[in-house]
Amino acid sequence: MTFDALFVPDELAEATSDRAWLEAMLDFERVLANAESVAGVIPAGAAAAIAEACDPDRFDVHDLARQGRASGNPAEPLVRALRAAVAPEGRDFVHWGATSQDTVDTAAMIVSRRALGLILEDVDRLAASCAALAQAHRDTIMAGRTLLQQAVPTTFGLKAAGWLVAVLQARDGLLRANASLAVQLGGAAGTLASLGERAPEVVEQVAAHLGLGEPPLPWHANRVRVAGLGAALAVAAAVAAKIGTDVALLQQTEVGEVRDPGSGGSSTMPQKQNPVASAVAVACARQVNAHASVLLGSVVGELERPVGAWHAEWSALSSALGLTGGAVAAVARLVEEIQVDAGRMRANLVEETLSERVSLALTARLGREQAHEALADGLRGHLPADELAELLDPAGYLGQAGAFVDRALALYEHRDDE
Amino acid sequence: MTFDALFVPDELAEATSDRAWLEAMLDFERVLANAESVAGVIPAGAAAAIAEACDPDRFDVHDLARQGRASGNPAEPLVRALRAAVAPEGRDFVHWGATSQDTVDTAAMIVSRRALGLILEDVDRLAASCAALAQAHRDTIMAGRTLLQQAVPTTFGLKAAGWLVAVLQARDGLLRANASLAVQLGGAAGTLASLGERAPEVVEQVAAHLGLGEPPLPWHANRVRVAGLGAALAVAAAVAAKIGTDVALLQQTEVGEVRDPGSGGSSTMPQKQNPVASAVAVACARQVNAHASVLLGSVVGELERPVGAWHAEWSALSSALGLTGGAVAAVARLVEEIQVDAGRMRANLVEETLSERVSLALTARLGREQAHEALADGLRGHLPADELAELLDPAGYLGQAGAFVDRALALYEHRDDE
Amino acid sequence: MTFDALFVPDELAEATSDRAWLEAMLDFERVLANAESVAGVIPAGAAAAIAEACDPDRFDVHDLARQGRASGNPAEPLVRALRAAVAPEGRDFVHWGATSQDTVDTAAMIVSRRALGLILEDVDRLAASCAALAQAHRDTIMAGRTLLQQAVPTTFGLKAAGWLVAVLQARDGLLRANASLAVQLGGAAGTLASLGERAPEVVEQVAAHLGLGEPPLPWHANRVRVAGLGAALAVAAAVAAKIGTDVALLQQTEVGEVRDPGSGGSSTMPQKQNPVASAVAVACARQVNAHASVLLGSVVGELERPVGAWHAEWSALSSALGLTGGAVAAVARLVEEIQVDAGRMRANLVEETLSERVSLALTARLGREQAHEALADGLRGHLPADELAELLDPAGYLGQAGAFVDRALALYEHRDDE
Amino acid sequence: MTFDALFVPDELAEATSDRAWLEAMLDFERVLANAESVAGVIPAGAAAAIAEACDPDRFDVHDLARQGRASGNPAEPLVRALRAAVAPEGRDFVHWGATSQDTVDTAAMIVSRRALGLILEDVDRLAASCAALAQAHRDTIMAGRTLLQQAVPTTFGLKAAGWLVAVLQARDGLLRANASLAVQLGGAAGTLASLGERAPEVVEQVAAHLGLGEPPLPWHANRVRVAGLGAALAVAAAVAAKIGTDVALLQQTEVGEVRDPGSGGSSTMPQKQNPVASAVAVACARQVNAHASVLLGSVVGELERPVGAWHAEWSALSSALGLTGGAVAAVARLVEEIQVDAGRMRANLVEETLSERVSLALTARLGREQAHEALADGLRGHLPADELAELLDPAGYLGQAGAFVDRALALYEHRDDE
Repeated sequence: MTFDALFVPDELAEATSDRAWLEAMLDFERVLANAESVAGVIPAGAAAAIAEACDPDRFDVHDLARQGRASGNPAEPLVRALRAAVAPEGRDFVHWGATSQDTVDTAAMIVSRRALGLILEDVDRLAASCAALAQAHRDTIMAGRTLLQQAVPTTFGLKAAGWLVAVLQARDGLLRANASLAVQLGGAAGTLASLGERAPEVVEQVAAHLGLGEPPLPWHANRVRVAGLGAALAVAAAVAAKIGTDVALLQQTEVGEVRDPGSGGSSTMPQKQNPVASAVAVACARQVNAHASVLLGSVVGELERPVGAWHAEWSALSSALGLTGGAVAAVARLVEEIQVDAGRMRANLVEETLSERVSLALTARLGREQAHEALADGLRGHLPADELAELLDPAGYLGQAGAFVDRALALYEHRDDE
Repeated sequence: MTFDALFVPDELAEATSDRAWLEAMLDFERVLANAESVAGVIPAGAAAAIAEACDPDRFDVHDLARQGRASGNPAEPLVRALRAAVAPEGRDFVHWGATSQDTVDTAAMIVSRRALGLILEDVDRLAASCAALAQAHRDTIMAGRTLLQQAVPTTFGLKAAGWLVAVLQARDGLLRANASLAVQLGGAAGTLASLGERAPEVVEQVAAHLGLGEPPLPWHANRVRVAGLGAALAVAAAVAAKIGTDVALLQQTEVGEVRDPGSGGSSTMPQKQNPVASAVAVACARQVNAHASVLLGSVVGELERPVGAWHAEWSALSSALGLTGGAVAAVARLVEEIQVDAGRMRANLVEETLSERVSLALTARLGREQAHEALADGLRGHLPADELAELLDPAGYLGQAGAFVDRALALYEHRDDE
Repeated sequence: MTFDALFVPDELAEATSDRAWLEAMLDFERVLANAESVAGVIPAGAAAAIAEACDPDRFDVHDLARQGRASGNPAEPLVRALRAAVAPEGRDFVHWGATSQDTVDTAAMIVSRRALGLILEDVDRLAASCAALAQAHRDTIMAGRTLLQQAVPTTFGLKAAGWLVAVLQARDGLLRANASLAVQLGGAAGTLASLGERAPEVVEQVAAHLGLGEPPLPWHANRVRVAGLGAALAVAAAVAAKIGTDVALLQQTEVGEVRDPGSGGSSTMPQKQNPVASAVAVACARQVNAHASVLLGSVVGELERPVGAWHAEWSALSSALGLTGGAVAAVARLVEEIQVDAGRMRANLVEETLSERVSLALTARLGREQAHEALADGLRGHLPADELAELLDPAGYLGQAGAFVDRALALYEHRDDE
Repeated sequence: MTFDALFVPDELAEATSDRAWLEAMLDFERVLANAESVAGVIPAGAAAAIAEACDPDRFDVHDLARQGRASGNPAEPLVRALRAAVAPEGRDFVHWGATSQDTVDTAAMIVSRRALGLILEDVDRLAASCAALAQAHRDTIMAGRTLLQQAVPTTFGLKAAGWLVAVLQARDGLLRANASLAVQLGGAAGTLASLGERAPEVVEQVAAHLGLGEPPLPWHANRVRVAGLGAALAVAAAVAAKIGTDVALLQQTEVGEVRDPGSGGSSTMPQKQNPVASAVAVACARQVNAHASVLLGSVVGELERPVGAWHAEWSALSSALGLTGGAVAAVARLVEEIQVDAGRMRANLVEETLSERVSLALTARLGREQAHEALADGLRGHLPADELAELLDPAGYLGQAGAFVDRALALYEHRDDE
């Protein structure tokens, strides 16, 4: 990914790097050999010898990828290299009964598990900050803007509460995807014939040791798991970008209602408060959407292993994980640090945002047509001055804003209840 | 959608048509007025007058859409037309306190609810047929093919079981999306200020009467619900297309292992068995993927109502619903009627698909390197003739195929257990 | 397309409707028969009888699409229905030597030709309006805004000139796509064996009569032509949406620098100037992007006719044509009618947009570091008051804005020069 | 990109790496300073000092990307680091009058220029191999297959000719995109106010020294250039994947008509001829399609520099370049080395592929209905035995296949004529 570090947090970048995939593939080979030796499928000494060699520092992932051009995947050359590195008693039993796809797919799950852990930490930070903001600004009046036009008053708290609910929905999706991660072990075409009668035991052990689910069947030809993860990531990145977009708009020179103290300045234009976190989130989300589309497309593949659809998943998945994390991290930091200018919010609110209220009041009194005429006339004479003044106080036209904030906060409190 | 009826079943086409949207918008207006009159927000007579006028035959949806060019949505002209159609006592109370987005979004939910009902019927048919096929062909031996090359033996039952599991996963996603459908009622910018104190009661009643969920907050600016539905549809359509792709490949002139009796013939080429259901499913899935990408993109919008992201949802959603249903219906029919040629499956299986088995047997005996040499030599002398004959019987190299089929069937039986 | 008429101009909606496809398919059959009779491939009387029956009012396109479920395309049932409608002397010669794909693909070209004609009219209107705006506001000073922050002064003319250049580039792409439209006539698998020796003559005549290009080879399995058209449409729609986005931002309540007199109002919120044309353009462009992605994906298909990739093109193409036209028409109208508030532009411009200029002036005098200190200090003493005043006049810091406008206008004048 | 080297050729991977972007950004800064000193905008000594420091080995691109989190782009920290590295006489004049986007956008053009050069070399190889194949197999009879069913005979030469034409169209698109690459130099918001009167001269010189076009206006806010490049790449990658798909299908175990000697084997399944090049091409094309969609989406951005749309381009562009090159290189190698089994092609051809021919012959004699009956009856008695034998010789039913091949070859010969 070009300028990777600009978008993806360091730890997540590492967790989705080629090195992380290598480690995960080796984890699979090690755990597989161990499970097979416990089940008596391979000799006990073999598993120890294999474990000994499963050291990522022995392998050059770039070279492996290059060698993978011949077979179309990185596991085949890795297995060859691993065999060469294993002591004689283990050599013949490396990758026993497995196929390259088992290695790569299970590695994808291991990488996803670790990356989702990191992403969810930032999602939790983001949810907490949205909740704090919603609470703090439960009654901070500002303009509600539809189609970029001031409509009626709302509160900044309600806006933050809306963000919060979306973040919690995205979080649910990520948790569900996380729970669906499962080991892939099927052998050449999914029957596990290569493992004989002990196959179920081996699968169970591999899953347990890797902390992954055990699927009902091998899922080499059923990519719903990966596609679903892609979609959950796309939703999460998009929610971050939605928040980022709102902030960028509220931070415009002419609006100035919020300010990100971490905004990027310009050395020659000190007035600028570039909404950098917003830009990062939007850039990430647009890309994750595209990667998710690749992953959804990969569900449609040929028979027991497709010609290309599978191979398209690896980068799409790594990038989707990294960029979703990037979007969420940037916006979590943003919402944590955001400075809200309640005075400016109130000052920006144009009086006309209360015209709906006045119009409803007049309609109730005069009927719809006369109310319209009255509004066109100006309101003198149609409404008593004190009533008009009251109608024009935005604090009186916030409806359920406070109640809605409270509901969102309750939802947040109970986010992990069954 | 061009040649709509070729892809979308009639009832579903109707359920996602502009007429269905019109009916749904009128349902919303009617139910809203009723709830408001029950809550005392508007006079009781008004609700009756409005209900009387909410007759879709009174309105021309094409004209409404054309008038919608001025306001950017179809609800605004509909509300105007509805007012004109309502008796005087109700006229002023049409759409009371609501905004156009409330009408369109709730209509989208009503349309989705009905369409999902139809889609799920076909998903259930498809799951049932996959289950039946898996059971019937639990032990039907065929070649497992990876990258379109014969790899090792498998069974047609295991293939069908793999389809079944994917269908059940897609079904879960659709059920979840269906359960998430919720009324939208927020007024001009989401505070429901227009409804005063009785707002919560009105929302609750509207949701209850429409059989939709009541959301924690208005979701006008939080499109996760719609995006999640889009993703669930994309998964379902892709699963149908995956099955269709497998069938088309197995039905090739040179393979001939299955036959769709509903295949399209050609008047001048009677030999052709065009896999029409497969083509329909693939065509639908490619488009649903694109529509889902639009819906995921629409999560990122400006403030309380975006400039275009919202407006992009309507067609994308209707098309995604229709085409997903089209894909599922075509493949449900296909799997119900498919004819399996077990003899051809067995005959097509090349002996080499058992080379893995022989190789593993030799490796266990001679070590990996000598085993390779032996395989290269030909096997004479390395293995007793009768052992070799046994090794070359595919029925003995099916591993867990039968057990996996049983697991998938158990999953199917318990698909609705908590 | 849901609420079609809201997005697509009437004439273009007609030109991309199922009825238009039907007419185009009949045009193909008529012209084919005529060319074949001229070439002596079929009897002269047959062509006349066929032409007589090629009347779209005789056919129900919805029924044809429904019948197309069996064969996977609408041409096969149409040809059957046409045969039934043709007088005996022509009946056997309907669709002689052609395949369904020939009919549908050539129809797609006919539909595209007509639709592109309509779209290009609006593109020309849009270019003309951008040019007029660039000229009229060549020297209208306003803030240049990057990342939604005021940066340095620019002119509205330069902005319009930038739009103009993009429109001209989009126009070039559409013209190129239009020039690439070519008849498809290949017979069952592209050899035209069915037409014997006179095949080249027939193809030439069909192309000539339909006003389409004659391709070097049948392109049934080479979809670059359609994909390229999709990409050109996506660019054009996106350019319209870019302009729409700029206008929506400049029309914000807090900015108010432009106003679309056609903005959608709200009956209860008369202050709103909803940027409806912008919303339409953005909604269209997001969808066209997705449709283009389907068309680009359809380049990858199986052998002489793919299982689904081809079938996915029809809706994607019609929708892409319709929605691109919708985006362009909406924005052409918008740019023609836009009202520019030059006073507000000047008033909005914050003094700090000239800080770059002051900084460069100071740097040239004091070096970069001292210049920065001076800026931080305030400028007193570092620059003579009159020089400072001059530096802070935005009219003096417009650089090449005027020259660039002139270049764009020259480009426009010479847009059709070779 | 995960397992980058598996998909992208080494030289192209380098040319699109972060290091290549760094070098390109430094090229821009060096050439800019030089042009400015020639134009007298900055002192001559400054340009020399800057050129001296523009050494990529001095900078750590990963650190720069990380620092770029604050400003949202990598150019800002690079310029700071470059200033620190430049001798005092040049320090203040680094990046004079330019903005970060000028640096990044021009670097994108430099990177694209070099990458396109490499890609076009492989496109040329691919075109040459397709042409050679078309010529060599001009008369090699095989089955034409539509919807994966044998239809009528065709030739392998015609298939290769179809590939060739698509490759030439893709090549035209890439050449056009290459010709459109242009320097970006606009200063803070596109007016070049920072460069005063000598701005045009500076732009001209920078363009000339970098070998890039000079655009009519700065294109910071007009992304048609980048989107058009993305679309051209998507077409090229898809054409490679189309060829790869055809080969994978013809190489199926059950078809065996072609063989890629570079096919990936399997150590335990020596019979497998995995179509690895096909898988690589398909995997690349699916991803390039997604990246192109991001780039087309980035045309729609806010005002003079968008919040995120721009930032989404960098990875999408690098990946699209790399993966397109990967697809084309894999398929160029494949088509160069492919082994064609003409005997198998003829043997696979089922007699029924000539039924269209027989049917047409009978129809001409008996009329359509009786012809159908005769076909259903079997042909005895309806046609003389020797005529029937002749009709059933596929060599006599190839139509224009040879002529079409010749046309494609002529097109190839004249591919660079005006």
